[in-house]
Amino acid sequence: MPLNVGLVGAGMIGADHARRIGTAVAGARVAAVTDIDPDRAAAVAASCGARTAASDREVVDAGDVDAVLVASWGPAHAESVLAAVAARKPVFCEKPLATTAEDCLKIIEAEQASGRRLVQVGFMRRYDTGYRALKRLVDGGDLGEPLMVHCVHRNAEVPESYHSAMAVQDTAVHEIDAVRWLLDDEITSAQVLFPKRTRNRFDHLRDPQVMLFETASGARVDVEVFVNCRYGYDIRCEVVGETGTAELPPPAEPAVRSAARLSTAVVQDWKDRFADAYDTEIREWTAAAAEGTASGPSSWDGYAAAVVTDAAVRSQQTGDVVPTGIGRRPDFYA
Amino acid sequence: MPLNVGLVGAGMIGADHARRIGTAVAGARVAAVTDIDPDRAAAVAASCGARTAASDREVVDAGDVDAVLVASWGPAHAESVLAAVAARKPVFCEKPLATTAEDCLKIIEAEQASGRRLVQVGFMRRYDTGYRALKRLVDGGDLGEPLMVHCVHRNAEVPESYHSAMAVQDTAVHEIDAVRWLLDDEITSAQVLFPKRTRNRFDHLRDPQVMLFETASGARVDVEVFVNCRYGYDIRCEVVGETGTAELPPPAEPAVRSAARLSTAVVQDWKDRFADAYDTEIREWTAAAAEGTASGPSSWDGYAAAVVTDAAVRSQQTGDVVPTGIGRRPDFYA
Amino acid sequence: MPLNVGLVGAGMIGADHARRIGTAVAGARVAAVTDIDPDRAAAVAASCGARTAASDREVVDAGDVDAVLVASWGPAHAESVLAAVAARKPVFCEKPLATTAEDCLKIIEAEQASGRRLVQVGFMRRYDTGYRALKRLVDGGDLGEPLMVHCVHRNAEVPESYHSAMAVQDTAVHEIDAVRWLLDDEITSAQVLFPKRTRNRFDHLRDPQVMLFETASGARVDVEVFVNCRYGYDIRCEVVGETGTAELPPPAEPAVRSAARLSTAVVQDWKDRFADAYDTEIREWTAAAAEGTASGPSSWDGYAAAVVTDAAVRSQQTGDVVPTGIGRRPDFYA
Amino acid sequence: MPLNVGLVGAGMIGADHARRIGTAVAGARVAAVTDIDPDRAAAVAASCGARTAASDREVVDAGDVDAVLVASWGPAHAESVLAAVAARKPVFCEKPLATTAEDCLKIIEAEQASGRRLVQVGFMRRYDTGYRALKRLVDGGDLGEPLMVHCVHRNAEVPESYHSAMAVQDTAVHEIDAVRWLLDDEITSAQVLFPKRTRNRFDHLRDPQVMLFETASGARVDVEVFVNCRYGYDIRCEVVGETGTAELPPPAEPAVRSAARLSTAVVQDWKDRFADAYDTEIREWTAAAAEGTASGPSSWDGYAAAVVTDAAVRSQQTGDVVPTGIGRRPDFYA
Repeated sequence: MPLNVGLVGAGMIGADHARRIGTAVAGARVAAVTDIDPDRAAAVAASCGARTAASDREVVDAGDVDAVLVASWGPAHAESVLAAVAARKPVFCEKPLATTAEDCLKIIEAEQASGRRLVQVGFMRRYDTGYRALKRLVDGGDLGEPLMVHCVHRNAEVPESYHSAMAVQDTAVHEIDAVRWLLDDEITSAQVLFPKRTRNRFDHLRDPQVMLFETASGARVDVEVFVNCRYGYDIRCEVVGETGTAELPPPAEPAVRSAARLSTAVVQDWKDRFADAYDTEIREWTAAAAEGTASGPSSWDGYAAAVVTDAAVRSQQTGDVVPTGIGRRPDFYA
Repeated sequence: MPLNVGLVGAGMIGADHARRIGTAVAGARVAAVTDIDPDRAAAVAASCGARTAASDREVVDAGDVDAVLVASWGPAHAESVLAAVAARKPVFCEKPLATTAEDCLKIIEAEQASGRRLVQVGFMRRYDTGYRALKRLVDGGDLGEPLMVHCVHRNAEVPESYHSAMAVQDTAVHEIDAVRWLLDDEITSAQVLFPKRTRNRFDHLRDPQVMLFETASGARVDVEVFVNCRYGYDIRCEVVGETGTAELPPPAEPAVRSAARLSTAVVQDWKDRFADAYDTEIREWTAAAAEGTASGPSSWDGYAAAVVTDAAVRSQQTGDVVPTGIGRRPDFYA
Repeated sequence: MPLNVGLVGAGMIGADHARRIGTAVAGARVAAVTDIDPDRAAAVAASCGARTAASDREVVDAGDVDAVLVASWGPAHAESVLAAVAARKPVFCEKPLATTAEDCLKIIEAEQASGRRLVQVGFMRRYDTGYRALKRLVDGGDLGEPLMVHCVHRNAEVPESYHSAMAVQDTAVHEIDAVRWLLDDEITSAQVLFPKRTRNRFDHLRDPQVMLFETASGARVDVEVFVNCRYGYDIRCEVVGETGTAELPPPAEPAVRSAARLSTAVVQDWKDRFADAYDTEIREWTAAAAEGTASGPSSWDGYAAAVVTDAAVRSQQTGDVVPTGIGRRPDFYA
Repeated sequence: MPLNVGLVGAGMIGADHARRIGTAVAGARVAAVTDIDPDRAAAVAASCGARTAASDREVVDAGDVDAVLVASWGPAHAESVLAAVAARKPVFCEKPLATTAEDCLKIIEAEQASGRRLVQVGFMRRYDTGYRALKRLVDGGDLGEPLMVHCVHRNAEVPESYHSAMAVQDTAVHEIDAVRWLLDDEITSAQVLFPKRTRNRFDHLRDPQVMLFETASGARVDVEVFVNCRYGYDIRCEVVGETGTAELPPPAEPAVRSAARLSTAVVQDWKDRFADAYDTEIREWTAAAAEGTASGPSSWDGYAAAVVTDAAVRSQQTGDVVPTGIGRRPDFYA
């Protein structure tokens, strides 16, 4: 019996997950697809032999849908996730879990009330081979207690619709989750600094930005976000411990010697950079969902990302160090 | 309708493919399993919800088996493959395709008589991300015409049952296929040199060995085989062209700074090194098999590997440069 | 006629420069040596065939001393340098040029009054092959306008006498000069953050520290200082421009594969790391001194380092962003 | 008292050594210069304050010449070296020591008769920081007994006067010496293979070439020589031991990220690649010469290079494995 997945949202990322389930994941199939654009839903449904549904509610409630994958636009996430939790169906939700911390808390409460973990949030970096190796090194203790983390998040370019707050909400949010996970620590304050702007920018956009975070244990995290760096998609992360350091490896690419240079290609697209991580993410999600539950990034992680991004966006406006006000993680999510 | 796979051989690699089909491949299931050891067959069958069968012939002929995966020991390969071809069922065969060039030729004839490609040989390196990037670079022309290839194939250690000819047949055979594929060229002669032996060896084993190949176009290939190198599993390949060179990337591992060294882990196991390649290999095989055909390394490639390894083994005995005597590739395999 | 050098200060660094002049610099010799410890002066003088002198003043005024090398302790620098300038003799001064910005200004005034550059300050990184290559890349324009610089300065360990302000004055001062030089820009503010302390520390020492600088053009600079990192001496510098980035290369060390690791040695000692830079520095100094003048890091650079380190030390105490108050560089130093 | 050096040969390399002695070597000066082209001798002499001399004999015999540096063309080396040895003056000789093994033996006999080492041959790689680190690793024993050495020697291009035998005599001769020194072992046979030629060549030139050597202890050495590789000057050397391997580090160059590539510059010129090695070589030579003797590569090393290159050139003609016939090293050179 394959796991029947209901897909809410058939945009780029939803379609990509449908393709993934149809090629690289065993024991699952897409049963139903919905989207605010019915044509888009129909196209994706056709590509994977699924039927269309009129709404997220119809997908969630369908008798032949065992688990729900939410890939709609952010403001719609909370409602779909809450519906799935209410139906006691495992649900995978692309980030953000919700666009407000309040909505995240509602999901946390509903999930706890259900008595079991049902929600997995789409922080795919936790499934990347390199990040996992880094996590093992940090956990293994050979680096000693982590004191600092240096991160870089660069994109070749962004479209004009990208605005300054998205540098936090869409971009640095990945580092925010990754660092919390790597250090098993909460971020307690955020600050954003603005270096000289690149002239290869839109007038409305501050780019690059330097973000500074402090954790509950006192570790310091800096994240350079530079989304019009021109040369490619470049993700770096170095954990500095008391006795050693470890760095996320760059993607493996052939070394070429020609024209007086020794060089490797720089990945251009985040989908290529994390293609294997996405595969593993959905594979692990369907495996847990087949057991009626969830693993990996939780509603609490979605909530933590929300309060940290809120603080960083406030700092973009005020220039201040802004406390995140994050509370204690419920034992349910330990 | 999933593709129903019949598994012939339930040893380590067969069991691994069964697990792979059950987790990382969509649209396929293992339907029947056979092995000379019925307990082993039963264990693997149970792990993937398949039934057992009494023989390879029973597997091949089963009405609910759409495609055959041969992972038995080498001397049994040819018979199973010929049976599958006779039944006009797509068949994946772990290397070697057959233990004699004559048997390879029989398969080639039978496959051509069937009118379509049915056989894929398990040279998994062609599915490795790094090798594929290297292939694109060679084909792209930026390196110019390839003149030389330098290869290294090292294992941390081998068991006592490993003997000197296996350095060719089990070890260098991967480089033999990879170089033929990278250069789209045939190997016309082989020679094996014996450096000073490592003392970390068995008395019966010549280790390391240096193998020299020449191709039809005149390119020179050297392969260092060192199967008791102690430090890990290390695969290298550099293509040297008229205007540039390209090297297979090593696996991406975190860089660690501690104890006065900057270091990365060396992979210890070939199954880890090529885990993704195996996944892709079986995924592409099942996709082609679902269409009733095969892609990737062909019977011709299996035959070419056989004649080149035969020549190299003869050179181990005589010290001479031994012609492979390979003929012209039939257009069927173009 | 060799250049006769008068050495003021025969401690570790002074002795090292004497040895350097005696082996790796053509056309110069040490003629006279003084030190507050006469035995130390005598030992170094004997090692290089020089005579001893009773005081820095005696060295500066000696008829057979053409140029002065000041390697005494910091608080004595200004007086020796001013004496040399008054005597119109070229003078090399180890950093700091003076321990107060006021004394730096006095030197600047005296030097300008003399009508020609006479002072070179010992910021040896400007002579390092890697930094010079980085400088050429920045100046060449291929990276575009520099927007950010990320620096790391780690030592394996420091002695107990090392205190928190020295992280700025003795350690980050090298990055302060290097960044000003690389960007041809002045640092206008400084801030120091304190991450969780390493427990491998002395109670009196804040370690590590994160320093943030802003330049006149708006570029942002971060410097991690971690002087008890345990694993070695590690200097990193990445310049991020509008269209590309460039990183200081690590020292070239053989790659070793053994015991399941691929590794290179990490340099342990700053004297080894910058040995060639010191040689080049003194070679270029003696060449300019033979012409009666100076090149390289100037009194202005010594002054700028003083005001920036003053601001950073103040920030260590207050936590605030502290303006450096640096003025306009006199045309004399353009 | 500086060491007075007499320079025989004022071509590119002679002029370079004169410049080196005038800038980067302490305690030495060029006193006299001779060249078959008197204008060239005069120009170099003028650049370093030396006088000219009419012949190598006049240089060697001059009362104010303490040591002789031979940088004339190869066929003239032996006579100058023998004259210096006869005069019991230390002599540095650029490679080759002599153009025939017989002349090398004459020098060895004369030097032994003199009772002390007087001759240093210009194999500058032994002074390269990277090679020295590699040598320490081999000698330190952590790699175990060396079994194989893989070398690459590539030049961007060579002039038309370069012919096939020079691939051995001028190019691989550096690897021949370096490997003998690294392994402390003699080369007992040589063979040269010809891959497909690059079309970026002259008709008269076989390029690339693959050279195979065996040592007295049974180690195998392969050297790829490719002198029109287009992309730059590239020297590689990997020593493979029983328990580990070590590789010569490439030159340290900044890593640049731009235009979708992560790259470093490839050195174009051998003089740049080994600039520091040349400095150290001449510094160590003058230090030993000031003591009336020599260190580093000896006449025996010059002789060994001659017999190995002779064997390799013969193999170029016959295709055979050619024994070098090298005898036992006299204890004098132990």
